Amino acid sequence: MKTVKLGERVIEDRRKMEEILRSSKVGRLCFCLDGKPFIIPLNFAYDNGTIYVHGSDQGLKTEALRQHPSVCFEVDEFLGTVPASMPCEFDAAYQSVVAYGAVQVLETVDEKMVALRLIVTKYAGEEVAGTLSRSMVGEYRSERDRATTVVKIQVERMTGKCSIKGTEQV
Amino acid sequence: MKTVKLGERVIEDRRKMEEILRSSKVGRLCFCLDGKPFIIPLNFAYDNGTIYVHGSDQGLKTEALRQHPSVCFEVDEFLGTVPASMPCEFDAAYQSVVAYGAVQVLETVDEKMVALRLIVTKYAGEEVAGTLSRSMVGEYRSERDRATTVVKIQVERMTGKCSIKGTEQV
Repeated sequence: MKTVKLGERVIEDRRKMEEILRSSKVGRLCFCLDGKPFIIPLNFAYDNGTIYVHGSDQGLKTEALRQHPSVCFEVDEFLGTVPASMPCEFDAAYQSVVAYGAVQVLETVDEKMVALRLIVTKYAGEEVAGTLSRSMVGEYRSERDRATTVVKIQVERMTGKCSIKGTEQV
Repeated sequence: MKTVKLGERVIEDRRKMEEILRSSKVGRLCFCLDGKPFIIPLNFAYDNGTIYVHGSDQGLKTEALRQHPSVCFEVDEFLGTVPASMPCEFDAAYQSVVAYGAVQVLETVDEKMVALRLIVTKYAGEEVAGTLSRSMVGEYRSERDRATTVVKIQVERMTGKCSIKGTEQV
């Protein structure tokens, strides 16, 4: 009997990892505080070795990030379960990337503009991003009267994994 | 003009958080090592305040987890972007849960059986899970000749968030 199986493969190609980062809608920002891990799911944009996210000061735990700038950022895509005749032969089809780097909280309107234009383009399209103005970025406050905090992660290294199809005698 | 907007809401109901945990196919295990964060996307099962995952010793970084058992585990579902007429009014529809707790590496075949039966039931169904035997669990080795490591996370606390629909004058 033949069945389709999956084997884990390390993604070596940085362009492939960047492609996965660009196409993912949600990423998870992960950092440590007093030896304990925290994780925040976020929308984001990736461009040229840098990940941009935005949120409220509280939501992003900005103070903790300023003190502990070493972070990782994860994206993944679960493509489904691959059935098999035996429980231990079941497998998952997926791809994932983890980027490691240092966080920096953006302070100037110019820096925030670059980041927010990338984020708005990704989720709302170029036309809407084109209407983003400096005053909007400088003055925008959330419904809870908080300024938008924009953060960038300079990626120092990335790892990627995916499962690949192969046919094997079982 | 009226438009649909979303507002962030904290999920207070533990049963709702458990429902999201149960229905999610991928979770992310996050821990700290020498003050730096690590994150591993995984399939998992949740049952009665406990999260079960399995993998290889290396994949799960079991030695690091034994030394740093304080972890968090995240699941999320991105439901889409909610359009608006202004860039800063765009929003995301989502729900997410983060569970905080302590990891324990399971040592006995009995403990591993409980965990693997839950995982196999979730991804492959009860019929396949029913064929799982003690010898399979005790003797199974991966294609790379590694025993399956099974880990449980005793959940100490959980937080949940979701965005809810509302109609607002803009």
